[in-house]
Amino acid sequence: MATVLKHPSSLPVGDVIGALALFEGLDTPAFERLNAAAQRLNIPKGKLLHLQDDPADYFYVIVQGWVKLFRETLEGSEAIIDVLTSGHLFGENAVFENDCYSCAAEAIEDTTLISLPTALLKELIASSNQLALNMLSSMSRHRLQQHREIEHLNVQNAPQRIGCFLLRLCKPDQPVPVTLHLPYDKTLIASRLGMKPETFSRALAKLKEQTGIRIVGPTVYIDRLQALVSYTCNHCSTSFPCDDLG
Amino acid sequence: MATVLKHPSSLPVGDVIGALALFEGLDTPAFERLNAAAQRLNIPKGKLLHLQDDPADYFYVIVQGWVKLFRETLEGSEAIIDVLTSGHLFGENAVFENDCYSCAAEAIEDTTLISLPTALLKELIASSNQLALNMLSSMSRHRLQQHREIEHLNVQNAPQRIGCFLLRLCKPDQPVPVTLHLPYDKTLIASRLGMKPETFSRALAKLKEQTGIRIVGPTVYIDRLQALVSYTCNHCSTSFPCDDLG
Repeated sequence: MATVLKHPSSLPVGDVIGALALFEGLDTPAFERLNAAAQRLNIPKGKLLHLQDDPADYFYVIVQGWVKLFRETLEGSEAIIDVLTSGHLFGENAVFENDCYSCAAEAIEDTTLISLPTALLKELIASSNQLALNMLSSMSRHRLQQHREIEHLNVQNAPQRIGCFLLRLCKPDQPVPVTLHLPYDKTLIASRLGMKPETFSRALAKLKEQTGIRIVGPTVYIDRLQALVSYTCNHCSTSFPCDDLG
Repeated sequence: MATVLKHPSSLPVGDVIGALALFEGLDTPAFERLNAAAQRLNIPKGKLLHLQDDPADYFYVIVQGWVKLFRETLEGSEAIIDVLTSGHLFGENAVFENDCYSCAAEAIEDTTLISLPTALLKELIASSNQLALNMLSSMSRHRLQQHREIEHLNVQNAPQRIGCFLLRLCKPDQPVPVTLHLPYDKTLIASRLGMKPETFSRALAKLKEQTGIRIVGPTVYIDRLQALVSYTCNHCSTSFPCDDLG
């Protein structure tokens, strides 16, 4: 559920939630109630927002920053389900999941959020078919993203999964050679891609060797975009550039 | 989206669709229209029902049999997204995905389906908030299943993923020692779990060694259920028995 927010830090709360696809076409009284209940929160890096199975009183819109959603196994490993940034929502699904969060959430950078009560969302969905349809569209888009994720975990090897992660950071009109910045640290990228740190290092070395990309600190230089695309996207059901992953 | 169907092969079409959670609480005129448009289809094993990106005129309810949903990569590998049986729906999400199927579908056994027009579903969702809410609940449940799937692909090793597959076939009140039958062939189980056949064979050998399970043809004998549970479920965020995967 991503909406591109322009200059998010300077926007009033109403403008941020007004820009969300989820609330498109909502009638004024419903929107006013959401606006009145919305609160801006500044969350420091590293703060745990909630645990899996916690009662979900609020859902959140990310104004600026990064949030990871994860689940913890009984023996203590962490499985990252998603890493979200500006314009994404999380926790809204609790409405359909016994009012509990299905994942834990942690701010991985200093993050600004807007919180909204899940009880209000639940009430409005039951009375507004427009909101229910918006939510269905968003959830369906998310389902497609998850299909792609399952596909990649099934058929791509580790270097290809890293290649795909990098290609998703490229803008469609980006001039070649491409220079881009890793959005968060490599350990987290490894976890996000379902790799142990040592697997990630080996895979990254192989990707560099196969495609000629260079990485200096958090900066990635892609001199031959087509080489990276061929290496990665032949092992996916969609060709580059794909815009289905928000 | 699973609903348990009793004696599905002998049920009239209206009873099958009437038992679906998706249509619960739907008003009589809407239900009558669905019922009038529903068609029963007998599909032989191996028949391709549709390709990914095909226009989606119909969605389907599985009455009896098995259907695999998959995506094909540009270089021709197949990634299995799901394998579904009686009571499951597929294709209904096309309503939110430009009226195209997001996965290919193939009958992997002789299968009986009921087809329903997606255009009618789209029309009814727009006018019935009850139907929209039912669809949201189903989609949310599916989203949780996919979270679990991503979690497992990220943190479980291959023998644990096979262990999990077997534990999901156990009924909660099943007497120990457990005897169960593999629902489809091992090659397909391997693909469903994102493994190459040789990885699957090695992983199965390790699982047998670690947990004492025995497999003769399509029959699995679990003499020490707790050993299988400990080996598998400590590497998951939910303890056995988990009922969230339909």
